[in-house]
Amino acid sequence: MRRVKILGCGNALPERKIVFGDQTRYRLGEGQTLLDLSEQAIRNALNDAGLDISDLDCIIGAMATPLQAIPCNAALLHERVAKGTEIPAMDINSTCTSFVTALDMASYLLDAGRYERILIVSGDTGSAALNPNQKESYELFSDAATAFVVGRGEGDTGVLFAAQKTWSEGAHDTEIRGGCGLMTAFKFNEENREDYFFDMKGIKVLKLAARVLPDFLSESLEQAGMTLEDIDVVVPHQASKALDMIMSRLGIKPEKYINRVSEYGNMISASIPFALCEAIHQGRITEGDVVMLMGTAAGLTSNILFLNY
Amino acid sequence: MRRVKILGCGNALPERKIVFGDQTRYRLGEGQTLLDLSEQAIRNALNDAGLDISDLDCIIGAMATPLQAIPCNAALLHERVAKGTEIPAMDINSTCTSFVTALDMASYLLDAGRYERILIVSGDTGSAALNPNQKESYELFSDAATAFVVGRGEGDTGVLFAAQKTWSEGAHDTEIRGGCGLMTAFKFNEENREDYFFDMKGIKVLKLAARVLPDFLSESLEQAGMTLEDIDVVVPHQASKALDMIMSRLGIKPEKYINRVSEYGNMISASIPFALCEAIHQGRITEGDVVMLMGTAAGLTSNILFLNY
Repeated sequence: MRRVKILGCGNALPERKIVFGDQTRYRLGEGQTLLDLSEQAIRNALNDAGLDISDLDCIIGAMATPLQAIPCNAALLHERVAKGTEIPAMDINSTCTSFVTALDMASYLLDAGRYERILIVSGDTGSAALNPNQKESYELFSDAATAFVVGRGEGDTGVLFAAQKTWSEGAHDTEIRGGCGLMTAFKFNEENREDYFFDMKGIKVLKLAARVLPDFLSESLEQAGMTLEDIDVVVPHQASKALDMIMSRLGIKPEKYINRVSEYGNMISASIPFALCEAIHQGRITEGDVVMLMGTAAGLTSNILFLNY
Repeated sequence: MRRVKILGCGNALPERKIVFGDQTRYRLGEGQTLLDLSEQAIRNALNDAGLDISDLDCIIGAMATPLQAIPCNAALLHERVAKGTEIPAMDINSTCTSFVTALDMASYLLDAGRYERILIVSGDTGSAALNPNQKESYELFSDAATAFVVGRGEGDTGVLFAAQKTWSEGAHDTEIRGGCGLMTAFKFNEENREDYFFDMKGIKVLKLAARVLPDFLSESLEQAGMTLEDIDVVVPHQASKALDMIMSRLGIKPEKYINRVSEYGNMISASIPFALCEAIHQGRITEGDVVMLMGTAAGLTSNILFLNY
């Protein structure tokens, strides 16, 4: 076990709310950016933890998408909340599961004494690249940001087990081909416009996830010396309305997992930490609970992490 | 000390060579991408280590710039060299010093037994965004890729000390404002064209670096219980022709550090690992040497790492 304790967390949603049938989504307002949302989430998290930015000694940006090609997202977050300090800033990215990868890494850094208190910030604004012609994805995503302050745990509090796998046969099932190094903005024109939008082959992703996740989960439980019965709350990535189907396939009962897809949709890297923070603040997760964070990400990557909260 | 051993490394340069006065630079040829260079570097590194991709259990993309906004670079590298495996893929990014941050993180993962052998791939193609109107940066950068295979060390081999700091008053001194989330390709037009190019305020970066680096180095040496005399070879980020001036300010003698700026220029995230790999293959760094990796990155971030090779 690696000692980690969640000291505080905070969520931030844009005010603009749109509705597709029974599904509610949130999108940035005019002039608002992901940095604004992130700053709000960070201030909420620091407030929740009763800490000041000077109490932190590392800032990790755990977002799926870059704000700028240079510098990294964490440096831009640092400018918003930590300017004048020397706190190191870096990004860790595994797309939608970036928060889980970052928490996993942070657990080693905290347990080994490298840092005392780490800020992990996740968030994305799918709206920057949603394609109005791809209804399935256009109506699925919300813009959001979440921040967590994590410190070294005491006693039994910490990461019990974590694993990650990538199956790159799914590398192009969820992607944004244009805008960055492989196809720069300079190449943008009316003919290749679609390449600059978010593109998701939903059925392919779902099939690949349904094929690989059951083995990954049973292997992880075995390696951790646990069974599904040992887990109190499952916080899955809120990938799509197929969440219930995937959970059922994994043998996870509806009362055990959190499903906020109709309220928020897919918030990309913010999905897991947003639902986790909400569940903590609502008292659904309490001290001593064993929590499973899990999800799939573009790649296709999947992360599983068992946390003794 | 965290046990890490460099098992092999490989470099890759594009064939197209251009010359500015006494400075040689390398740039991608038509149709060539950073993925092509990276694949070549990875194959060179595996060959050097006498290992196969199936011997690895983690792939870290440690590049400054994104190839696509989604998925992460490591997933696209995975597709090139590890398709069909389940090796986890993730990015770690602190811009120009991404390799040092990744090696630092990898040292915790290896030392704790999470992974046995990690592939770290750095590389960038500045040419994708160089501004022909900004001579200073246009004539400075080369495209390149480098890969390292690192495993758990034995005996005295490993990371003796590592530290990172970020001073975000320099966040906009080195940047590419356009192309990603904050200013997407959809907003590109002839008026804001310059925002999509790499933009460097060289003198400002140099002043900030010259101000903060001496203290950071002396603090690091003190915390590591070392002096400059204990270091056999310094592998600095090949930031610019001002390298000699910075090294002199830090009290590092010319015979102790590697300066390849005239041969290669600034290779962004590949600069440090490329020079390190070359020095290993040329026999300038041999077993038992204490090596200091150091550099500044957009952010402004700086990393210092002492490695017992």
